[in-house]
Amino acid sequence: MAIYPEAMELLIEEYRKLPGIGRKTAQRLAMHTVELDRDQINQTIEVLENVRDKVKRCPNCNNLTDKDLCDICRNPLRDKKTLCVVEDISNLIAIENSNSYNGTYYVLNGLVSPSKGLGPEEVGIMDMIGKLDKEVKEIILAISPTVDGETTMLLISELLKDFDVRISRIASGIPIGGNLEYFDDITLAKAIEDRRQLGN
Amino acid sequence: MAIYPEAMELLIEEYRKLPGIGRKTAQRLAMHTVELDRDQINQTIEVLENVRDKVKRCPNCNNLTDKDLCDICRNPLRDKKTLCVVEDISNLIAIENSNSYNGTYYVLNGLVSPSKGLGPEEVGIMDMIGKLDKEVKEIILAISPTVDGETTMLLISELLKDFDVRISRIASGIPIGGNLEYFDDITLAKAIEDRRQLGN
Repeated sequence: MAIYPEAMELLIEEYRKLPGIGRKTAQRLAMHTVELDRDQINQTIEVLENVRDKVKRCPNCNNLTDKDLCDICRNPLRDKKTLCVVEDISNLIAIENSNSYNGTYYVLNGLVSPSKGLGPEEVGIMDMIGKLDKEVKEIILAISPTVDGETTMLLISELLKDFDVRISRIASGIPIGGNLEYFDDITLAKAIEDRRQLGN
Repeated sequence: MAIYPEAMELLIEEYRKLPGIGRKTAQRLAMHTVELDRDQINQTIEVLENVRDKVKRCPNCNNLTDKDLCDICRNPLRDKKTLCVVEDISNLIAIENSNSYNGTYYVLNGLVSPSKGLGPEEVGIMDMIGKLDKEVKEIILAISPTVDGETTMLLISELLKDFDVRISRIASGIPIGGNLEYFDDITLAKAIEDRRQLGN
């Protein structure tokens, strides 16, 4: 079935490597690309070269950056006393978009998962502890309350128990706008347990 | 919201230009790309350069090719007396995959659409007629039976009415495996009208 020219087949294979892209979608994307003019393909190539050459991890917090330190670490207005630990960059972006946090971050390389052989070294917890600034007074664990997330949070608080730093985790409960009848028993139990007094 | 490094933002914008890719998916794809190692990005760049430099349209039938003529036009075993007209390359691929056709093709650049200002010149009908080989005895219009498809088929048969060539269109009806209660009145009426006698 060598219906497509070979160069086209290779492009389809490249698109298939992207997450969530199957053969049919890859064919559609490759068809789109092959119809572009030379200048547009050149622009795509240039953008990829740029990403390859410029984008790296911030040596301080593991965020993406194209400078020596990332924009958040370099920003003198960010509160250096609070460090927020997230499992990946997407979660950092989500928190930044919520405009609810003005401290700094440490981005893990995912979550601790004994079954996948990912311990505190592999996901960057040891690196984070090694770089922990003395200024930091509170560490907020903004980590998903999944099995691996709970393991990760437990491990971090164990490893930091002799440090003079407050450790907190973001609240679990019913999402704003959510109808509580649709959430599971554990979420509901947790939301009741963590209830907050109204008024004063 | 300059949260991502600029090079990364540009990559997200590149992915967004692909059909069916929104901002969120583009972010996910860019995140995947940025985590690749240098060699993998270089491979993607090379594949794009290859497509840019090698893949072009067959001057004979408008199919994709990386040679002077496409594989189908160059194949001496294909029946040159039958020409199948399709609206785009995806439809050519679909017919080739069905293993039900051994003639040659002409690939239009989409369908005639007066409302979009696309006439017979724009979609390549005039080019097809200009290149029509004297060997061709039958032209099969394998064009979707949509409004624009019907317009296109009508126009092609008008323009070819003085040519010594038989023109046919692929059958409309209930898809094999389809339950006829789920198809619309027009499809059903057409399927009844175009009924075929069984036995002999």
